[in-house]
Amino acid sequence: MYFELTIRPRISETDMMGHINNVTPAIWLEEGRTYFFRDCLQGAASYPMPLMVRHLEVDYIDQLYFESEAKLLTGLKRIGNSSITLYQEIWQDGRLAVKGTTTIVHIDSESQRPAAVPDEVRARFAPYLQGNASDQQTS
Amino acid sequence: MYFELTIRPRISETDMMGHINNVTPAIWLEEGRTYFFRDCLQGAASYPMPLMVRHLEVDYIDQLYFESEAKLLTGLKRIGNSSITLYQEIWQDGRLAVKGTTTIVHIDSESQRPAAVPDEVRARFAPYLQGNASDQQTS
Amino acid sequence: MYFELTIRPRISETDMMGHINNVTPAIWLEEGRTYFFRDCLQGAASYPMPLMVRHLEVDYIDQLYFESEAKLLTGLKRIGNSSITLYQEIWQDGRLAVKGTTTIVHIDSESQRPAAVPDEVRARFAPYLQGNASDQQTS
Amino acid sequence: MYFELTIRPRISETDMMGHINNVTPAIWLEEGRTYFFRDCLQGAASYPMPLMVRHLEVDYIDQLYFESEAKLLTGLKRIGNSSITLYQEIWQDGRLAVKGTTTIVHIDSESQRPAAVPDEVRARFAPYLQGNASDQQTS
Repeated sequence: MYFELTIRPRISETDMMGHINNVTPAIWLEEGRTYFFRDCLQGAASYPMPLMVRHLEVDYIDQLYFESEAKLLTGLKRIGNSSITLYQEIWQDGRLAVKGTTTIVHIDSESQRPAAVPDEVRARFAPYLQGNASDQQTS
Repeated sequence: MYFELTIRPRISETDMMGHINNVTPAIWLEEGRTYFFRDCLQGAASYPMPLMVRHLEVDYIDQLYFESEAKLLTGLKRIGNSSITLYQEIWQDGRLAVKGTTTIVHIDSESQRPAAVPDEVRARFAPYLQGNASDQQTS
Repeated sequence: MYFELTIRPRISETDMMGHINNVTPAIWLEEGRTYFFRDCLQGAASYPMPLMVRHLEVDYIDQLYFESEAKLLTGLKRIGNSSITLYQEIWQDGRLAVKGTTTIVHIDSESQRPAAVPDEVRARFAPYLQGNASDQQTS
Repeated sequence: MYFELTIRPRISETDMMGHINNVTPAIWLEEGRTYFFRDCLQGAASYPMPLMVRHLEVDYIDQLYFESEAKLLTGLKRIGNSSITLYQEIWQDGRLAVKGTTTIVHIDSESQRPAAVPDEVRARFAPYLQGNASDQQTS
């Protein structure tokens, strides 16, 4: 299952090449992650969780344009001991344009060190895990 | 006298019209204000001052492009009792492209209400007041 | 009548003061203008119209925050011979936070000079004129 | 050898966590790539080259803050037949904060298909190749 957001591209997000600028998808991916966490974890004892982004990968597969809405899908690739890897896709007009993978780490707010992802969060995230669920347990 | 910054335009600051997007100058103007305050007030007892932006005006006079550096000039139009009005210009290739006027208010950090601009700040700002210095006293 | 958009604030649109950064409303106002034109003029013979932004005013009335959706209202203040003045408001949690006024000019794409706003556009814009309709005729 | 840019962080590039927002480094990395190409290739027969970004990786190693200038280093990791992989670092106050790796492809402007990196470009890029120069030849 994916969490889905509709994105209205902005003129300020295009560039002189006539398409959506290459940094814009990184902005949208962050928006998707934020609203996925809010939607999925709202009301959980551990929300909001202190998180730190460690790694971002963006694959540019096809062009994005101003003219039509984009669809942003956010799911999970893997939940480790303290780390969470999200997998996201941006679609426009039926074309897959961008794939994004982000690894974030759950931080203990006192020690500022990595801390285990709470069980309640793990349970709420489970339906969004893509592919082989056996990836889920290893750190 | 003006405080001057050189701006390197970014591809991400252009848009599909082929020029610098219309919101970009507002971003540059804020950068100019921030670095003007830092440069002019560094070491002053009241720096950093709690400030609140109240009003922004941008006049778009000529196009800005990616291809050459822009020059950003920051000066002061008026120092009132608690309010400060900045006047800024953005130039590119010898052409005046944007004029910006921003009114900010000095805030007392406890009461969160407007507070008089300290004398030390007033003295440091004085050389940057444009035009008739007699504007300086009235609130 | 206003054209209304719902804005989902982004973390990247906040700043270290803990609120929505002061340049962000200028970005949202442009988004509102763009989608107002598309919604109101789609299918008109003269859409898209070559337009040039000449003047922007932003009044910061109250703080905007990340935590809740914002409501962006776009209407018209005045339609001159070649110029169009838009009036916009940004609301959050029932509070009016920002007022924006933007003057744009309709440009003849060949001569690159101001050109009369077409009657069809004038007719479609009419319902969005705020306040005294008698403002509508003078240039 | 690296191409070096100094970055003045902007308030609008911070976020409510009090640091530089996680998407900001992606914007700076693009700025670094653009100015590296301009600096290194200006005057070359094939500049500007039509390029397409295919893959971006950002490693977040340490926090970036508004308060001091950042140093952005841009070099090359590998030059393939049609693809170029850049390697970039962002430093602040002597700390390495971000590593970025970007793969771009040289495109033939007529066919819109990948095309060999011209020899003149290859020669100009050579001094910026990091590490083992034997990586340079394979596609």
